[in-house]
Amino acid sequence: MFDFEIVARAGRSRAGVFTTPHGELLTPLFAPVGTQAAVKAVTPAQLQDVEASLVLANTYHLYLRPGDELIRDLGGLHQFMQWPRPLLTDSGGFQVFSLAATRRVDEDGVTFRSHIDGSEHRFTPEKAILIQENLGADIIMTLDECADPKDRLYVDGAMRRTHAWAKRCLAAKRRNDQALFAIVQGGIDPALRTASAQFISRLGTPGIAIGGLSVGESKAEMLDMLDLVTSILPEGKPRYLMGVGTPEDLIEGVRLGIDLFDCVLPTRLARHHAAFSSEGRLNLMNAAFSHDERPIDSTCDCYTCMTFSRAYLRHLIAARELLAGTLLSIHNLSSLIRLMQHLRAAILEGTLPATADALMQQWSNNAVRGIPA
Amino acid sequence: MFDFEIVARAGRSRAGVFTTPHGELLTPLFAPVGTQAAVKAVTPAQLQDVEASLVLANTYHLYLRPGDELIRDLGGLHQFMQWPRPLLTDSGGFQVFSLAATRRVDEDGVTFRSHIDGSEHRFTPEKAILIQENLGADIIMTLDECADPKDRLYVDGAMRRTHAWAKRCLAAKRRNDQALFAIVQGGIDPALRTASAQFISRLGTPGIAIGGLSVGESKAEMLDMLDLVTSILPEGKPRYLMGVGTPEDLIEGVRLGIDLFDCVLPTRLARHHAAFSSEGRLNLMNAAFSHDERPIDSTCDCYTCMTFSRAYLRHLIAARELLAGTLLSIHNLSSLIRLMQHLRAAILEGTLPATADALMQQWSNNAVRGIPA
Repeated sequence: MFDFEIVARAGRSRAGVFTTPHGELLTPLFAPVGTQAAVKAVTPAQLQDVEASLVLANTYHLYLRPGDELIRDLGGLHQFMQWPRPLLTDSGGFQVFSLAATRRVDEDGVTFRSHIDGSEHRFTPEKAILIQENLGADIIMTLDECADPKDRLYVDGAMRRTHAWAKRCLAAKRRNDQALFAIVQGGIDPALRTASAQFISRLGTPGIAIGGLSVGESKAEMLDMLDLVTSILPEGKPRYLMGVGTPEDLIEGVRLGIDLFDCVLPTRLARHHAAFSSEGRLNLMNAAFSHDERPIDSTCDCYTCMTFSRAYLRHLIAARELLAGTLLSIHNLSSLIRLMQHLRAAILEGTLPATADALMQQWSNNAVRGIPA
Repeated sequence: MFDFEIVARAGRSRAGVFTTPHGELLTPLFAPVGTQAAVKAVTPAQLQDVEASLVLANTYHLYLRPGDELIRDLGGLHQFMQWPRPLLTDSGGFQVFSLAATRRVDEDGVTFRSHIDGSEHRFTPEKAILIQENLGADIIMTLDECADPKDRLYVDGAMRRTHAWAKRCLAAKRRNDQALFAIVQGGIDPALRTASAQFISRLGTPGIAIGGLSVGESKAEMLDMLDLVTSILPEGKPRYLMGVGTPEDLIEGVRLGIDLFDCVLPTRLARHHAAFSSEGRLNLMNAAFSHDERPIDSTCDCYTCMTFSRAYLRHLIAARELLAGTLLSIHNLSSLIRLMQHLRAAILEGTLPATADALMQQWSNNAVRGIPA
């Protein structure tokens, strides 16, 4: 269980097979986000149609609603949401620091108020593990603190707490059918990132996550940190870049040896009427598409592109039909999953540099400046 | 084309096969409503999964947005919304009288303001046919005026206009690949209903619709009018009861010899968290379902019931996930389509009276008092 086999390399890039209790994950891969145990507006059957393999769910949200004990009592998250393939849960840390109504961190944990009803709760490393064991995902995360990268002093303290909490998470873990990944933090300070990558690497977890990126730093700063961290991490473990990202970030990440990605971008863009395409990102609300008989992307084989015209999708958006969000989500998810499949094939075929350049060229037309709220 | 073969009878009830350019319709049937060229929150693939055969779209809505000429230019409504099976459009009359911001009727037609942007428009019988020929559904409707049944004098005038407009619609019709159904009106006055059923029957259209019911009259009044009208209509033509209705109404309608039904009820109830079930109608927002591992209906074979628990659906509703509307719509549509399949099978097998009684007993637990707005 949790064997990670690297089947091909290209520079720092790797094509791997990560074995989990719910099947093999072919890496590099992009994981759709099902925050509340559902990928927004998309059924599990539709997710399987776009060849999603790993799906992420958020511990913070599921702890608050419907509650991790309820999900445990109903047979765990796979059974609850009827996702038969691997699942990953985050630790809840990121949402506590980004979403909760209030928070107060101390060395032992973090106390916060729910963004739903203002009720007070507390996460400790032990609690984060208990919740994730109740949820039962294949891949779980240590509790971490993601700090504003501009506040170096605070980043230092948050990193030290993240390290101490990672050790406590490892000690608290009971289930053997879950892979616990520890998380590298350290903001955008090379010394802190180096220290964190070294510390986390020594913990010997079956995989390592990189947190605290794509949280307000520049693209160059993010890539510098990724370059630094991936040069330190052990070769034989899967590397998960949390919450990233744009198509360009995925390509750069793969070049730098990242194996797993997740992001709300494809489904969130879909709800904002935007679709990835090989011609560049399209805002399908635009009246220019009202008579356009072409699919979003003539090179795409998803249900949406194989079935519907831009004109129809534009109509659904203008008419505020819920179906628009579903159809655009299917397409955007399919696009990023296909992108990763292309990169993986190129690693296997020894054509990664040229393929990555070509994909970067193509996807640069889809440049996304930040993720809509 | 538009041959209607009655393959079995039981009292007034009939099992038929209605041939259209986009395939055979097995009657009696229930047609999902795709008001704006989309059944709300449901893909055409999901509609095919629940064995929907006929889908209705609204002329008023599509004329205003995206426009019937645009749909014509893009190959017609089947191509636009990618529904490969038969389509029906209403004439727009009902929505002009129920939904438009203002309306002013005269003997020649009706002038109204759009509920979307207040712009002024005019429907005449000829215009209603032109729009519906642009849309290109298999079954189209004459322009009618649905009046408040309590105002007998007005109902009389509206009925006379409806009759005159029906003749003008027949004269205006150009396409041979569309079946134009004329509409019986007359409110809840037996003499007017009789006169209308006789007048409309004489027009010789390939099918006859019954309008102006389920618009505020009592259930007994509706059934009395149905009983009266179906005793007058020619045997060999399909009969379409417009905008009806509840499961009980469908069973009563089949007993009285109705062949086609449509209603927004199943998808609208779904968006209000309500699901049909053999135990009675369930409001899945109810906390009683939060730990319930059973499907909505253990006798149902739809994707939702074959896959998800009530507890999961309840969670999706509580968490305001769009997926809830999709999954409940699939189930509710499947329930009414299966109900009609059961009634048809009973007509064929000669067991209708007992089957209809048993289904009425079962579905009375799903009693719906009015359709939510």
